[in-house]
Amino acid sequence: MDQKLQMLLDTVRKLIRRGAYPHITKVLAKSHPADIAHLFRYLDLKEQRILFNLLADPEISAYVLSELDHATGAQLLEQIDKETITEVLQEMPYDDAVDIIRNMPEELAEEVLQSMEVEHSEEIEELLKYDEDTAGGIMATEIFSLREEMTVREAIEAVQGAEDIEMVFYLYVTDEYNHLVGVLSLRQLLTVPPTARLKDIMTADVISVRTDIDQEEVAHLVAKYNILAIPVVDEGNKLMGIITVDDVIDVMREEATEDIYKMAGSSDEELLYGYKSFKIARLRLPWLITNLFGGVITGYLMWLFKATLEEVIALISFIPVITGMGGNVGGQSATIVVRGFATGRVDVSTMRQVFLKELRVGVIMGVVCGTTIGLVAFFWHHNPYLGLVVGLAMVTAMSVAATMGVVAPFFFKRVGVDPAIASTPFVQTANDITGILIYFGTATLFLSYLR
Amino acid sequence: MDQKLQMLLDTVRKLIRRGAYPHITKVLAKSHPADIAHLFRYLDLKEQRILFNLLADPEISAYVLSELDHATGAQLLEQIDKETITEVLQEMPYDDAVDIIRNMPEELAEEVLQSMEVEHSEEIEELLKYDEDTAGGIMATEIFSLREEMTVREAIEAVQGAEDIEMVFYLYVTDEYNHLVGVLSLRQLLTVPPTARLKDIMTADVISVRTDIDQEEVAHLVAKYNILAIPVVDEGNKLMGIITVDDVIDVMREEATEDIYKMAGSSDEELLYGYKSFKIARLRLPWLITNLFGGVITGYLMWLFKATLEEVIALISFIPVITGMGGNVGGQSATIVVRGFATGRVDVSTMRQVFLKELRVGVIMGVVCGTTIGLVAFFWHHNPYLGLVVGLAMVTAMSVAATMGVVAPFFFKRVGVDPAIASTPFVQTANDITGILIYFGTATLFLSYLR
Repeated sequence: MDQKLQMLLDTVRKLIRRGAYPHITKVLAKSHPADIAHLFRYLDLKEQRILFNLLADPEISAYVLSELDHATGAQLLEQIDKETITEVLQEMPYDDAVDIIRNMPEELAEEVLQSMEVEHSEEIEELLKYDEDTAGGIMATEIFSLREEMTVREAIEAVQGAEDIEMVFYLYVTDEYNHLVGVLSLRQLLTVPPTARLKDIMTADVISVRTDIDQEEVAHLVAKYNILAIPVVDEGNKLMGIITVDDVIDVMREEATEDIYKMAGSSDEELLYGYKSFKIARLRLPWLITNLFGGVITGYLMWLFKATLEEVIALISFIPVITGMGGNVGGQSATIVVRGFATGRVDVSTMRQVFLKELRVGVIMGVVCGTTIGLVAFFWHHNPYLGLVVGLAMVTAMSVAATMGVVAPFFFKRVGVDPAIASTPFVQTANDITGILIYFGTATLFLSYLR
Repeated sequence: MDQKLQMLLDTVRKLIRRGAYPHITKVLAKSHPADIAHLFRYLDLKEQRILFNLLADPEISAYVLSELDHATGAQLLEQIDKETITEVLQEMPYDDAVDIIRNMPEELAEEVLQSMEVEHSEEIEELLKYDEDTAGGIMATEIFSLREEMTVREAIEAVQGAEDIEMVFYLYVTDEYNHLVGVLSLRQLLTVPPTARLKDIMTADVISVRTDIDQEEVAHLVAKYNILAIPVVDEGNKLMGIITVDDVIDVMREEATEDIYKMAGSSDEELLYGYKSFKIARLRLPWLITNLFGGVITGYLMWLFKATLEEVIALISFIPVITGMGGNVGGQSATIVVRGFATGRVDVSTMRQVFLKELRVGVIMGVVCGTTIGLVAFFWHHNPYLGLVVGLAMVTAMSVAATMGVVAPFFFKRVGVDPAIASTPFVQTANDITGILIYFGTATLFLSYLR
């Protein structure tokens, strides 16, 4: 957080504690809307409610809501009166308004939609049809487009007359049926004769996406082609909306956070719950319970080998390190594959290569760690055979773990389970089990030398 | 990967195997440069070398290099003759060329710089002064700016005359000393009288960054203010360059991948090594060796409790689950904090809140898991005291683990160690140790009831 924001945050917090509301209103009036929106992220829900109520200008309220996650946004809106809700929502870009309405109680949402001006509510109801995570769900519908038969002079006049299109960088060109047929830049308009027709100067090769494309796919395309906006068309190539790069940034950030959280058995929905401990616990528990039963199975296997263990009690000293290292290496491989899926670096066509690479790397690292732990075992318990057993078990466990870390995500992807969620607990449990089996298996085999 | 690209990849691979090089040249000529660049990501270094040599147009070579990571780019360039290297680098935006030159052997870099036209080499040497991860290191220096005394008519003429500035969305305005004083949009120019002076119509409130600001900070600003480009100024507010949102997307993607990899004790530098197993193993080993010694310490503690264990062998059945669950919960908390640092949701001002939240969540989840495992222990070994010991140990271990997962990243951040790298191994080892101590401590305390 930068210093300016930190100061603003400290001031606002202090004033909220003191209940000095008129003072806060003054501070807010002097702040950039983006800073105010940013501020909300650091406040708890109670503080957010107070501050939101103090925003006098519906335009700023709208801005703040656009920047917050939509569930929080819906919660903040619910506490104010319906007329203001309607007013604020009408100030927002349709795509953001839709996301907030989705998160409202159904009854309130209906009421609000009915009290809106028809032109607004129609647009919003149109957008509500699209799935939240698709191009249709994130596109802005306030598009400025030009007809292909227009002349350059007419186009410039249209640009001059258009309101609220600060962010025009690409001018999309359509035919009489609103089919997307080309694209122009504003600068291009300035460098050609005013009488030229758009269809003769436009670039006919436009990259566009369909409304039902997944938002992650949209982010990939925008990043790949380095474009600032991508037009969205329906199945008949009619221009429906536009997705700008700032929405794409939000998508990318969300998806990265989602993946990171998922791999730790957490969930990005947690953010929505803020400090509600019970709800958060409920989100995380299924993953933990899965791991719990994995741990019980591992424990059961150890129990089966208790005769071996009772004979050579020294074996217990290396249980944590054998299972731990297997888990670590498997976790590394799984992370590389899962993140590779997300960035597009890993897919079915490279599976064999990735598998062989991770196997080689696993063997190399296994030999290094196996030798180290073998020597530790030898010098600690003064038994060269124990060193051998522990070392061998380590090499095998780490090599198996590395390949398991590759196979598991591919398997889960194949059967349609999200590899980011399922891979870590599976890989960890599987490696604990194979680690214990390999370790005690080897030990039982060499039992007469270990005694 | 989309179908079109998959087909292209399959075709090119097949042709490379067959050595049908003239055929490949034809295929490449028909493909979009972005697709060709994307293709390179899926090829191994040998295939990349072959394909890169077949690119006939230096402009396309330049495009491909801009999209690849810079170390690979440097490796690909080294194999071709110096004149072509110079030619290709001159086709690239300066910021990308600089990054590639940084990755070349010093001698070759010097030679290439000397053979360049002076205007290019001067720009590049200027940029080489900035640190790679700062605003100066990623900015483009080919900026188009206007003087504040210009009239709108003059400004439009300047825009019409400027070459190669397809991507103009903001027009930056400077004073006679090249100080950044304002900003305009192209559309604004079209809607005001041609005789107006820029200084009277421009927005004087420009968000800019200094050359030495970290690139991650730049990404945050661009995302926060939803802007498409940010001007870069030196310490005297002189306009030095511009960073566009497509560069920011690359930064964000890099940083997210870096964080994810680091938390698994891997490194994003791995990508540079592709399939070189020994180099990759060397990158990952330090983290694993740290964990290895953590595991040995845990094992040593178990060894100290061997008397307890020999008396009540049933205790071994729950070692994996107690240490495992502590590691899981600690890992979740650590992940949430580390990712929170990156996205700005967590910082020192919210530390206490996050700590208390994770503690509460940890206790709740601990009670659920502790009850479960206590019942399992009771029914399995028919001993209510064992159930009690295991359950109690689980609740305590999980609660401690949850808070450790919060404290560790904050501590590492405070002492200047990257929390993404250090947190997981530390939290895991610390939790194994506390888990074992709590478990065997409780067991030793209740020893007479367990026998």
